[in-house]
Amino acid sequence: MNPKFDYPISVLPDTLTAALQHKIDNKTKPRGALGRLETIALQLGRIQNTLTPDVSQPKMLVFAADHGVVEQGVSPFPQEVTMQMVMNFLAGGAAVSVFCQQHQVDLRIVDVGVKAEFPEHPLLSQRKVAMGTQDLSVTEAMSPEQMAQALDVGRSEVNAAIESGSRILLFGEMGIGNTTTSSCLMAALTGLGPEQCVGPGTGADPAGVAKKAAVIRRALARIRMSDQDTSDIACQFGGFEIVAMAGAMLQSAHRKTAFVVDGFICTVALLLASRWQPAVTEYAIFAHHSEETAHGTLLDLLAAQPLLSLDMRLGEGSGAILALPLIQSAALFLNQMASFESAGVSEES
Amino acid sequence: MNPKFDYPISVLPDTLTAALQHKIDNKTKPRGALGRLETIALQLGRIQNTLTPDVSQPKMLVFAADHGVVEQGVSPFPQEVTMQMVMNFLAGGAAVSVFCQQHQVDLRIVDVGVKAEFPEHPLLSQRKVAMGTQDLSVTEAMSPEQMAQALDVGRSEVNAAIESGSRILLFGEMGIGNTTTSSCLMAALTGLGPEQCVGPGTGADPAGVAKKAAVIRRALARIRMSDQDTSDIACQFGGFEIVAMAGAMLQSAHRKTAFVVDGFICTVALLLASRWQPAVTEYAIFAHHSEETAHGTLLDLLAAQPLLSLDMRLGEGSGAILALPLIQSAALFLNQMASFESAGVSEES
Repeated sequence: MNPKFDYPISVLPDTLTAALQHKIDNKTKPRGALGRLETIALQLGRIQNTLTPDVSQPKMLVFAADHGVVEQGVSPFPQEVTMQMVMNFLAGGAAVSVFCQQHQVDLRIVDVGVKAEFPEHPLLSQRKVAMGTQDLSVTEAMSPEQMAQALDVGRSEVNAAIESGSRILLFGEMGIGNTTTSSCLMAALTGLGPEQCVGPGTGADPAGVAKKAAVIRRALARIRMSDQDTSDIACQFGGFEIVAMAGAMLQSAHRKTAFVVDGFICTVALLLASRWQPAVTEYAIFAHHSEETAHGTLLDLLAAQPLLSLDMRLGEGSGAILALPLIQSAALFLNQMASFESAGVSEES
Repeated sequence: MNPKFDYPISVLPDTLTAALQHKIDNKTKPRGALGRLETIALQLGRIQNTLTPDVSQPKMLVFAADHGVVEQGVSPFPQEVTMQMVMNFLAGGAAVSVFCQQHQVDLRIVDVGVKAEFPEHPLLSQRKVAMGTQDLSVTEAMSPEQMAQALDVGRSEVNAAIESGSRILLFGEMGIGNTTTSSCLMAALTGLGPEQCVGPGTGADPAGVAKKAAVIRRALARIRMSDQDTSDIACQFGGFEIVAMAGAMLQSAHRKTAFVVDGFICTVALLLASRWQPAVTEYAIFAHHSEETAHGTLLDLLAAQPLLSLDMRLGEGSGAILALPLIQSAALFLNQMASFESAGVSEES
């Protein structure tokens, strides 16, 4: 399988752009006064090719996996925290659990490669590819077959969500060590130096950040980058949850469904997906600007303007779920606000 | 009446600050990873003096009034739009109506001085002080008695909301011409030049903005500023809805109830309130950074960091209601997330 061909994604049509803009401009408010909500309303209308976009039954998919690179001591948290946090998600005690419950959003946890066995649970999809990736600083993180399998996990979870009625999808991740994996992928995909792609993650100090950059430099030195296509890079440096998210994003876009991008790690998954299928970014709504330093660089690269900037750096999809009410507000004002004419309000001169 | 003495407001106690911070830090997330939500959780806990803050039954109060200064041609919208938008609020067609319904927030429209008579309506409080203010560029906008009456409208609406069970209040406003009034009040209260206090409002072009500044300069030249105390300035340049919001904010703080500040005009109301009672700002949660130019200056002056920045400039409380889910998330994570201990998650080393 090759995601370059397997997920055809259309660029957004402009069929309704003028009609959508006209509808937005005729709502009872000064032109442009709802700012970024107007941009989102226009994007939703174009994605769904309708003047009345529907974002009902949102679903949050949190992909979890472990990372061989933790053996290099890149995270202040021990590896078993991935497993413990999955249990916390399932028990309803994590931030993403609390916020999903607040907004009545179905939460599904997808084990793509956590180094632990889980009991069955109604919120858990057991789709383990392996017990974590190999250590990317010394060898290829995953095989091409494993990459294809991880992509397919994302694809099939998205299919299930859309078939159950979800009109918008939210993605999140959990995996101790995955800021290092993401920074390495970012460096390999963009050509930026490791120092520009790293940050403190969940809480590394400056020495820890320098260590991450050194680990990434060793990883990149293993291979001749000019020989690598996008799929090779995904195998060399990917994480299972990151590749699964890329597959999920490609499938969402393929099925003309808007999706919400969380923080740094999710944005790296989108970068990866966009190297296979550039049009995928048109279906993405960027939730928040994370405190992770490299996230700003990456957002600029993607010309992305996230909705929120709250100094957060938690992952789990926590930024995505916090941005959801704003996206729902964008659809609602377009569908429910009165027009100048219908409300009998005088227009500006 | 003198709001300098009539609304005693305590500075927030530090009794529980350490215990709140400890509770926040022990939630299953890296320390500080929920960013600004952690700041809000701490503020709510301190305001309510509890480790389990409650923001249930939020209520939105939108104060509406007209402004004599529209005779100077400061707004691209005709004055009757104030009345028309009140009807639109009541009919459920305005942005704030749609967003309040989305978040199941009770909306109350308070007529403090709209130049029109309204039929009775269950969402409307008829508390008209006068049929709009006088033109501040040629005379005192309101009398001291009218100012006291407008303050009391804010106070009694807040009392009614708190007595009906609201643990957090949101304020919004409607009044054609009220960015000019607000800019004039801001200039008079801060000593900044009119140019630094004006912006395009609902949609003035550069010539319109320059005209606003000229109108304000004329207004300020009417009186010797050094002779004026805060109450004098409120009478000279106030709007009924702005003074009513100031009264509402003072009463909220007096009753130890957090309130959400919308955009530029609401922030000017808070500035006014804070000149009577500086501690009032400790009870304020700033919703959004409006596109109105002077709002940024004013937020800096108040050392305020709003939650949202969405290029909005609508007023009506629309920014406040959009920020509410984030404030609720702050209370919820503090009340409902698991701790490292309760979830059996390993802490960072």
